[in-house]
Amino acid sequence: MAGPGRASEEGLIARYFAPLAGPGADGLRDDAATLTPTPGHDLVVTADALVAGVHYFPEDPPASIARKALGVNLSDIAAKGAVPRGFLLTLALPDDWTEAWLAGFSEGLGAAAAEDGCPLLGGDTVRSGGPALIGVTAFGEVPAGGIVRRGTARVGDRICVSGTIGDAALGLKLRLEPEAAWAASLDPAQRAVLADRYLHPRPRLALAGAIRRHASAAMDVSDGLAGDLAKMLGGGRSARIATDSVPLSEAATRAWEAEPGLIEPILTGGDDYEILCAVAPEGLDALRAEAAQAGIPLTAIGTVTSGDGPPGFEMGDGTARVFAAGAFSHF
Amino acid sequence: MAGPGRASEEGLIARYFAPLAGPGADGLRDDAATLTPTPGHDLVVTADALVAGVHYFPEDPPASIARKALGVNLSDIAAKGAVPRGFLLTLALPDDWTEAWLAGFSEGLGAAAAEDGCPLLGGDTVRSGGPALIGVTAFGEVPAGGIVRRGTARVGDRICVSGTIGDAALGLKLRLEPEAAWAASLDPAQRAVLADRYLHPRPRLALAGAIRRHASAAMDVSDGLAGDLAKMLGGGRSARIATDSVPLSEAATRAWEAEPGLIEPILTGGDDYEILCAVAPEGLDALRAEAAQAGIPLTAIGTVTSGDGPPGFEMGDGTARVFAAGAFSHF
Repeated sequence: MAGPGRASEEGLIARYFAPLAGPGADGLRDDAATLTPTPGHDLVVTADALVAGVHYFPEDPPASIARKALGVNLSDIAAKGAVPRGFLLTLALPDDWTEAWLAGFSEGLGAAAAEDGCPLLGGDTVRSGGPALIGVTAFGEVPAGGIVRRGTARVGDRICVSGTIGDAALGLKLRLEPEAAWAASLDPAQRAVLADRYLHPRPRLALAGAIRRHASAAMDVSDGLAGDLAKMLGGGRSARIATDSVPLSEAATRAWEAEPGLIEPILTGGDDYEILCAVAPEGLDALRAEAAQAGIPLTAIGTVTSGDGPPGFEMGDGTARVFAAGAFSHF
Repeated sequence: MAGPGRASEEGLIARYFAPLAGPGADGLRDDAATLTPTPGHDLVVTADALVAGVHYFPEDPPASIARKALGVNLSDIAAKGAVPRGFLLTLALPDDWTEAWLAGFSEGLGAAAAEDGCPLLGGDTVRSGGPALIGVTAFGEVPAGGIVRRGTARVGDRICVSGTIGDAALGLKLRLEPEAAWAASLDPAQRAVLADRYLHPRPRLALAGAIRRHASAAMDVSDGLAGDLAKMLGGGRSARIATDSVPLSEAATRAWEAEPGLIEPILTGGDDYEILCAVAPEGLDALRAEAAQAGIPLTAIGTVTSGDGPPGFEMGDGTARVFAAGAFSHF
């Protein structure tokens, strides 16, 4: 129920969310929106929710939280080879929500939606009775039949990841243990890079076309590289990964040098929101060339093997490790 | 995080939700699904969430809660003149969830989805950190451009509602005040009817075609007839409603006779999930005939008037009342 001095649900929607509404949303004055894929295309639909205290720090700037809520969903859209078309927002607010928080949230949401070409189409606002929950359903489109699935990698395919891995997990660790010895080895700019990667996922939308044209399978890395790789494979397929080839930022490299045990959160921590894909060996050069053209680094880190064990990570000292059991879970 | 003895998120999905998956969902083994409207059709998308303790009683049977979560969304789909195509589920579970609860929930969800021809396409499962939250995004389709909007009624149109109004609100009151004097005037079967209407909304999917062919505007009644009527109108349009013509069940009629003040919850209580629509006078007979053919009672209760005040309810004693300010809010 709206308390004294607070706007009604209708009033909040009109003030904060109607300005973000796209075509088909009827200015958020209806209970439903229309959405029609371009002729010859399929819609791609996905839903991911963030919960305060589980997926983000409640004290984070509301604009950052909004950006993350949309970003983690568009990361799935990109990994499927799709182009964003719009989203629905389910916003469950705690009892102590404020209009200032909502103003910041809607501002960040609107900025991210505009950048990514993904307008708001509708949603629901409710009282959570607990922490805030931000649920997004995102829509994208691909040429008919063109969705890139998670489970379709073949033995012999090369495995690639975009960007760098582990930054967000280290950014989270920095938040939780700012006085850790390894943190002292980083300069302020490096610490800021890691913190920013945790706070502001950047969906790899520019890579969607290349993934669709060349990848045999793809997913986004949201629950840790090792665990997500295990989800992508299975069914008689495993992987051999050259750990030294996993792309790390300068900050993550420095941190790992200071504390070798950090390889575990780097490879199993969540929130990377990079794209993990498999590609037939003969398609690797074309995929890398298109990624480079899109301005996104893409690195081959290993090969799909036959077998049923978890992916093996070959370490620089010649040993092999498995990390899959340590896969991070948001649940 | 999954506690000891509990299945992982992937395990829960495979056990309880994969059996509900429809075409395009890839057995819920991917992070996204495809959905393609029939050629020449638009998708209609809507999202509504239920929160334990806000929208339902946590101790209600989980199968009933699941049925309600899907039903309130398909009620919106029906009111827009659309045919269901599928849904996404965002399930935020409290710390004390049990597998027994989840088994009952998925069973009820599967039964409702099968009845309504609306398969599960995907979703997300998270820890709520508070009460359970069940978010559904539902998809339907209409012939291109055929969505029936909420705000398009014209002055002079007749206003109709399906089924009976107020049962769910009285069912809720019965739950909260079982010892109320008016409750004693109902026999057990009448009390059961009201309780069931609160617990098990039945989306009026069979009415969608008639609405699309004849209504000038439509919405579902979820937040109370008076308040929803006010939302439908505005912009120089109001309504005159003959209160005695508002269709009531035998149980609600009996309760109102016992306690005249119950007209307020009957007209302003939520959870009816009937369809409220406007129709040009010359289309009324055809709309009613098609509704009768679909087996759904549809009653004309008033007329759209010009004016800016809230809808006026003419009482049997010749007075007129307004109820809009008492509109029920789930927020």
